Amino acid sequence: MDLHITREELIRGLGRVQGIIERRTTNPMLSHVLLSARGSSLRMTATDLHHTLIADYPARVEKEGDLSLDAGTLFQVARTLTAATVQLRVGKGNRLQVRSGASEFNIVGTGGEDFPNIPVRDDRSTLGVTGGTLRRAIEETLFSISLDENRYGLNGAHLEEVTGPDGQPRLRIVTTDGSRLSYSEVVYKGQLGMGRKVLLPRKALAEVKKLIDHDDADWQITFGERSAAFTSGGLSLMVRLVEGEFPDYRQVLPAVHKRRVTVDRESFGGALKRALIMASDRNHSVRFAFEESQLVLSAQNLEAGDVREVVPADLEGAPLFTGFNVKYFQDILTATRGDKLQIELGEALDPCIVRLPERDDCLFVVMPMRLD
Amino acid sequence: MDLHITREELIRGLGRVQGIIERRTTNPMLSHVLLSARGSSLRMTATDLHHTLIADYPARVEKEGDLSLDAGTLFQVARTLTAATVQLRVGKGNRLQVRSGASEFNIVGTGGEDFPNIPVRDDRSTLGVTGGTLRRAIEETLFSISLDENRYGLNGAHLEEVTGPDGQPRLRIVTTDGSRLSYSEVVYKGQLGMGRKVLLPRKALAEVKKLIDHDDADWQITFGERSAAFTSGGLSLMVRLVEGEFPDYRQVLPAVHKRRVTVDRESFGGALKRALIMASDRNHSVRFAFEESQLVLSAQNLEAGDVREVVPADLEGAPLFTGFNVKYFQDILTATRGDKLQIELGEALDPCIVRLPERDDCLFVVMPMRLD
Repeated sequence: MDLHITREELIRGLGRVQGIIERRTTNPMLSHVLLSARGSSLRMTATDLHHTLIADYPARVEKEGDLSLDAGTLFQVARTLTAATVQLRVGKGNRLQVRSGASEFNIVGTGGEDFPNIPVRDDRSTLGVTGGTLRRAIEETLFSISLDENRYGLNGAHLEEVTGPDGQPRLRIVTTDGSRLSYSEVVYKGQLGMGRKVLLPRKALAEVKKLIDHDDADWQITFGERSAAFTSGGLSLMVRLVEGEFPDYRQVLPAVHKRRVTVDRESFGGALKRALIMASDRNHSVRFAFEESQLVLSAQNLEAGDVREVVPADLEGAPLFTGFNVKYFQDILTATRGDKLQIELGEALDPCIVRLPERDDCLFVVMPMRLD
Repeated sequence: MDLHITREELIRGLGRVQGIIERRTTNPMLSHVLLSARGSSLRMTATDLHHTLIADYPARVEKEGDLSLDAGTLFQVARTLTAATVQLRVGKGNRLQVRSGASEFNIVGTGGEDFPNIPVRDDRSTLGVTGGTLRRAIEETLFSISLDENRYGLNGAHLEEVTGPDGQPRLRIVTTDGSRLSYSEVVYKGQLGMGRKVLLPRKALAEVKKLIDHDDADWQITFGERSAAFTSGGLSLMVRLVEGEFPDYRQVLPAVHKRRVTVDRESFGGALKRALIMASDRNHSVRFAFEESQLVLSAQNLEAGDVREVVPADLEGAPLFTGFNVKYFQDILTATRGDKLQIELGEALDPCIVRLPERDDCLFVVMPMRLD
């Protein structure tokens, strides 16, 4: 292998690889990137065995070949170089010779044959979405995937096909950690025809979000029996689907609501942040009193003190008070945009639904807390 | 106590307090700020018993009084408020009522009488310097104070009076951790007449640096038998001097040099950063080969690989190679400005001196390392 590549492309490629590799593992190959020089491009492959990223970058290849080496070391080197182009060449003993400006590195590597086998794709169906739409749907759902590895089936994002109010099919992403739930939908081109339930790991969604560089880029999502793939241009992320049963989430969605409150994002967000200071560190519980023209948040803490926040709010229905983990509302605000939020309520311990006015393609459910 | 203060002044004052207080302590009063409303100002006092900050901020005082409360909690509250003014009032049970916009906090406090006694100043002499000069001298010396608490006498900055080449007296700040040494001098107004050795704690210098808002502000430095004070406007930091004997540092300063090398800051800095990648994690040791028109840095690492960096350099004297901890040179570059660095060398294991051309008021010594 002997090639010249721009520093910019090298850093872009290695930056993408960093999220895929596993640093804390007994298998050193999972922290490696496989470099393959072919034709007029450098291919970088990285895998943690569940997620595999393959991407091609333009390069002037003098000699084709492969080498696998620690991705973190090469990234660290690439980021400190200052000349515009970099030469990568396999030297003696499988060392990667990196030359740029007045710098010369020799990085310990190993032959490409030691790199893990890449799983074979079993594509059955493909649909097309734009980068901006896909990123929006991921942002609106990623935060409510359970981080608890023991919550079998809640560790992933559930994908399914639904029909929008306009009769058009949509791909819906649903996530829940048991205390809250989010869904967000994207309109797609092509055939989905999803034959089975699909559960994508959290890391897959997080990495796809990072891989989306442009809102108007075309992305293809391919589904197979055991895997899915996200592809755009010369870049492809293959993902092994999560085994496990996603709960029947529709049963927690209230069919009707007794109360509806509209609040301004900015004043609600500020009040949440201040109320959190006095909320318990354990469950971030704050009292929400929905009154005729205002929402009053209050919290108290034996050691630090208490707080009372008044948020202007339009309430349809009878006054009500209940408790919520304020972090759940903060997460919704971080993941979304727009000036207003609509909160739909039943009784004090019923699930609460948050909607964005003028958006029929996303919805958030927050379970209330019993106040002590 | 009952007063109105701008949010901006409140945040400025509490921000300064955060560096002084001790959060991890069995004495909760050391994480407190004492608020005292008098005349037309709010005084904030904070102490860790070694460092005491007293500062006055303009306020509209309705009722004078004192209250002591957790400084971190009040800072957290102040930063999340959005209205331009804040009312602070002592409510029932020594709670501080904080009102601003639609927010109301009651923060647990305690009467001012529980706050630690502030040490009495024993001022003997005072000198005046500008903020910019003082900050420059601190930045050029702070980094080489020993962080090892067992290095008795090296845990502080040594202050002494020297005579500049122009015959004028200067205040010199000297710091060392045993492997390197820095000094930087400031010209001052007034009488120093320093009767005894002064050793200032690291934290004092770090906090003074943060307190300097404007380059042209006037600062007074006052020395007593056991304490020093840094004062500017309505702000004063009193410091208990460190006990201990600072070493006779002049004996490590070589009187003559056999070699002198001039390097460009930018190319030297880039090469250090890249060489560090392959240097040992333990002592960051890199080989420096000073050759006729270049400095060659090289390092190797069994696991990761090796690196060779060429830096253009003008050498006066015979070629030489030796080893250095590259972090020591990086610290000098971070603390200083200017395009060029002059490095004066003796033999391979002699201390090396770094100077900034056109600056006769600062100097840095770096001890070499024996290469394995």
